[in-house]
Amino acid sequence: MKKLLLTLAITSLSFINQVSAQEFSEQQIKQTAEIRNNALNSSLAYDILTSLTTEIGPRLPGSENDPLAVKWAQDKFNELGFDKVWLEPATFPAWRRYSESGMILAPSKQPLHLTALGGSISTPKQGISADIIYFETLDELIASPKNSAEGKIVFINYKMNRHIDGNGYGPAVKARSTGAVEAAKKGALAFMMRSVSTAHHRFAHTGGSHYQDGIKKIPTVAIANPDADQISRLVSLKKPVKVNINVQAENLGEGKTFNVIGQFNGTQNPDQYVLIGGHLDSWDLGTGALDDGAGVALTMAAAKYIADVKRPKRSIRVVLFAAEELGLWGAKAYAKKHKNDKHNIVAAAESDFGAGFIYGFQSSVDAKSLPVVRAIAKQLSPLNIKHIRANKSSNGPDLIPLRKLGGLAGFSLHTDGNDYFDYHHTADDTLDKVDPVKLQQNSAAYAVFAFMAADAKTTIKGK
Amino acid sequence: MKKLLLTLAITSLSFINQVSAQEFSEQQIKQTAEIRNNALNSSLAYDILTSLTTEIGPRLPGSENDPLAVKWAQDKFNELGFDKVWLEPATFPAWRRYSESGMILAPSKQPLHLTALGGSISTPKQGISADIIYFETLDELIASPKNSAEGKIVFINYKMNRHIDGNGYGPAVKARSTGAVEAAKKGALAFMMRSVSTAHHRFAHTGGSHYQDGIKKIPTVAIANPDADQISRLVSLKKPVKVNINVQAENLGEGKTFNVIGQFNGTQNPDQYVLIGGHLDSWDLGTGALDDGAGVALTMAAAKYIADVKRPKRSIRVVLFAAEELGLWGAKAYAKKHKNDKHNIVAAAESDFGAGFIYGFQSSVDAKSLPVVRAIAKQLSPLNIKHIRANKSSNGPDLIPLRKLGGLAGFSLHTDGNDYFDYHHTADDTLDKVDPVKLQQNSAAYAVFAFMAADAKTTIKGK
Repeated sequence: MKKLLLTLAITSLSFINQVSAQEFSEQQIKQTAEIRNNALNSSLAYDILTSLTTEIGPRLPGSENDPLAVKWAQDKFNELGFDKVWLEPATFPAWRRYSESGMILAPSKQPLHLTALGGSISTPKQGISADIIYFETLDELIASPKNSAEGKIVFINYKMNRHIDGNGYGPAVKARSTGAVEAAKKGALAFMMRSVSTAHHRFAHTGGSHYQDGIKKIPTVAIANPDADQISRLVSLKKPVKVNINVQAENLGEGKTFNVIGQFNGTQNPDQYVLIGGHLDSWDLGTGALDDGAGVALTMAAAKYIADVKRPKRSIRVVLFAAEELGLWGAKAYAKKHKNDKHNIVAAAESDFGAGFIYGFQSSVDAKSLPVVRAIAKQLSPLNIKHIRANKSSNGPDLIPLRKLGGLAGFSLHTDGNDYFDYHHTADDTLDKVDPVKLQQNSAAYAVFAFMAADAKTTIKGK
Repeated sequence: MKKLLLTLAITSLSFINQVSAQEFSEQQIKQTAEIRNNALNSSLAYDILTSLTTEIGPRLPGSENDPLAVKWAQDKFNELGFDKVWLEPATFPAWRRYSESGMILAPSKQPLHLTALGGSISTPKQGISADIIYFETLDELIASPKNSAEGKIVFINYKMNRHIDGNGYGPAVKARSTGAVEAAKKGALAFMMRSVSTAHHRFAHTGGSHYQDGIKKIPTVAIANPDADQISRLVSLKKPVKVNINVQAENLGEGKTFNVIGQFNGTQNPDQYVLIGGHLDSWDLGTGALDDGAGVALTMAAAKYIADVKRPKRSIRVVLFAAEELGLWGAKAYAKKHKNDKHNIVAAAESDFGAGFIYGFQSSVDAKSLPVVRAIAKQLSPLNIKHIRANKSSNGPDLIPLRKLGGLAGFSLHTDGNDYFDYHHTADDTLDKVDPVKLQQNSAAYAVFAFMAADAKTTIKGK
C-alpha cells in the first residue's frame, strides 16, 4: 500500500514536471532561480523604499509632496534603466489636513489623540465641545431613536479583529465610511470612532469617509485605541464625558496627478505585459512605508531583477497608481484609458498589504492557464510560498477597476497581515516598520511570478 | 563527595530555617503566605491603577489635575480603611506645556513628532525655522568649535541602550539635562535631541532639563526615534536639513502641592514604620500608568493586603511622593520634615520602574539585620524572586533624599525594565501597557516584604 502511494506520488510528480517542462525550458527554470536568488541577496527594494520614504516622506495627493513623488518615481525608473517611463493623468477630490487636536474636558482634562478622517469638514476654530453618546457598533447607532444624538458627539467603539488576511478591516471600515452620515441623521454635532486599527499604541488611524447629499455634513474623526478604551471606561463611570474636538481641514475640489509607469519591453510580444505595482500616494500622517512604499519599492526592484537576468518574451510593466487612498482614482483612470487594450495584460498582481512574509500564491485565470500557474507556484515554493489552489483571487485594490472590465488574469501573493493594521494609515507607518529580509522575500516572489508569466510559452488568460 | 555536598547543603538549609524560625513564628510565616496568595488573586492593585489613570489621567504638578490627584489619593486611602491619612506640603518650580509641533521643511515637508522637555522656554509664536547641525553625542557637541551652531538648531542623535535594569538611561539623560546649555554655548537657536527612549514608535519622550545662569536660554525638545532616524538619513544625503520647531510653554514660578500619606498603625511600635510607595505625579503626555501609577497602586494595595490579614507590630506607611518628575520635590520635603525621626523608618522601598516582573530582591542594611533579610527573601522565592546578596541597594528615586541623611535601611525589588523605556515619559504610557498579572506579582512582593519587615522580631537597621 505504501509502495503504491509512493508510485502514484512519483507518477503525479513527474506528470507535473512534464507539464512544467513543456511550459518552461530547463534554461528558463535556471533563469528563474537566478532571479530569485539575486532578489534574496539584494538590498535594492529596501534602498528604493528608503529613498522614497526619506526624500519624499508623506505624499497625499494634492499636497506639495505629490508632484515630488511623481518626479521621484520617474527618476527612479530611469535610473534603474527601464525602457519606457511615462505618466498617465488622473483626477481626484483634493483634501488637506491643516491641524487637529482633541481633549477630554470632563470628568478630568486629558489629551485625546485623534485624527480627521479623509474628507472631513472643519470644526469651528475653537472646536466642538460636547458630551459624547456611546455606541459599540454602527448598527446600534442606526437603530437608535431619531434625535438620539441631538447636540452630542457620537462615539462608536467597534474593535477590529486581528487576522493574517486582514478580514477584520471590512467590518470595521463600515463605520468609517458612513458613520458621519448616520450620526448626522440622529442630530449629532460630530462623529468620532475608535480607530480601524489593531494597534495598542496611541496613534489614530485616518482613511476615507463619505458624506451624503441631503444629510448635514459634520466633522468626522478617529481616536487612538488607548483613548477609545479610556473613553469606554469613563462612560462606565456613569458621569457625562465631555470632549473637545478640533479639526481644520479643507476640501479643495478636483486635483490632478499622475500614474507613473515604467516598462521593460518584451522581446517577442512587447504589447503584451505582466502588470505589477503598488500605489505611489500615501496618507499624510506617516511616511507611507508599509502603505504602500513597500509595494512600490518591491515591484520596481522585481522588474529590475528580471531585466538584469533576461528580457522575457512579454513586457514587464510596473504601474505606480495615483490617489489610491482617496478612492482608487489612479486605478480608475488606468482602467478607463486601457479599456480597449486590456487583453494585453497577461497577468496582474498588486502589492498593497505591507511587506509581511508572503505565504500564499493564488490565481484567477482560465482553466487552460492552470498548468502555467502550477509551474510558477513550483518556483515560488523555495520561498516558502504555498499554492492556494482555489482559482479565485481578489488581487490588490488598484486592480478592482480593471477586474470590473472582465477577463483579468489576476494573481494574489498573500502577505501575512497580522500586524499590518498596527501601522496602516497612522503616523507610525514609517521605514523602521518594514523588515528588510521579508521585503527581499516579497520582491523575489514578485520577480519569479512576473518573469515566468511574461516568459511562458502559453499566454495566460483571465476567466 | 556528592554526599558530603548534600549533607552540607542540608545543614546550611536547616541553619537558615532555624534563623528564620527565630525571627518569624510559624504563624507569621503562614500569615505571610496568606498575604502573598491574596495579593496574587486580587484585582485591587489594577483597580486602583485603573481608577487613577482613568478618572484623573495625566497629573503634572501645578496642572488642574494635580489637586484632583491629591484628593483622589486621600479618598482612596480612606476608602481602603487606612488608620491615618494626611498631607505634607511640598513646593516645586511649576511649568506648563500649552502646545508644540514640528515640521521638516527641507528637503521635503514632513511632520516632525516632538515634545518640549520640561522647563523649556517657548519659541516665538511662529516657531523657529533653521538648518540643523548634527551630532551623534553630547561630547561631540561640547568638543565642537565655538560658534559652530550659530544660527542653527543643534540635533543630538544619541541612541539609548535597552537593558533589564535600565542602565542605558543615565548616559542618555546627560544630553537631556544639559544639552540646551551646551548648544547655547555654541550659538544655537534651539536644542533638539533623539528621545531618551528605546521605542520603535513615533512618540517623543519628555523629561526634566536645565538651564544655567549666564547662558542664554533656548527652547529644548526631543523628537521621536523614527523621526531621529529620518533626520539622520536626510543628513546623510548631504543636503541642508531645515526644520521648524514650535513650543508654547511657560515657567510659572513656585507651585504648591502635597505628599499624600496613608498609614496602617502598628500594634506594638506604631512610631516605627516600613515605608513603601511611589510618586503620585506624572508627566502630562500620557496617563502615567507605568510612571508611576503602577507604583502608587501596587503599594497602596500591598498595605491593604497586609492589614486584611494582620496588623503587624510596626506601622505600614504608604507615601505617595509629589512632584518627582520635576526634581524629587516631594521626596526632598519628606526628608526635610522627617530628618529628626528618620530612625523610625525600619525599612524603605519605592516602586518607580513600571510593573514588569520583579526578579530580584536586594537590601542595604546593617549586618545584624541580614538574617531577617534572608527570611524575607525566602518568602519572596515562591514569587520567583531571587535574593541578590550584594548588600547594597539603590532604591527608588524618591528615597534618595532620605538616603542622603544616612542610615536608611533601603530595599530594592528589581523590576524587569526591558520595555519600560518604550513608554516612559511618552503619550503612550497608558493603562493598557500594564500587565495585570505582573502587577499582582509586584504587589504580592511588596506586601510580603513590608509585612515581614514590619512584623520581624529584630528591628531592621540601615548601615
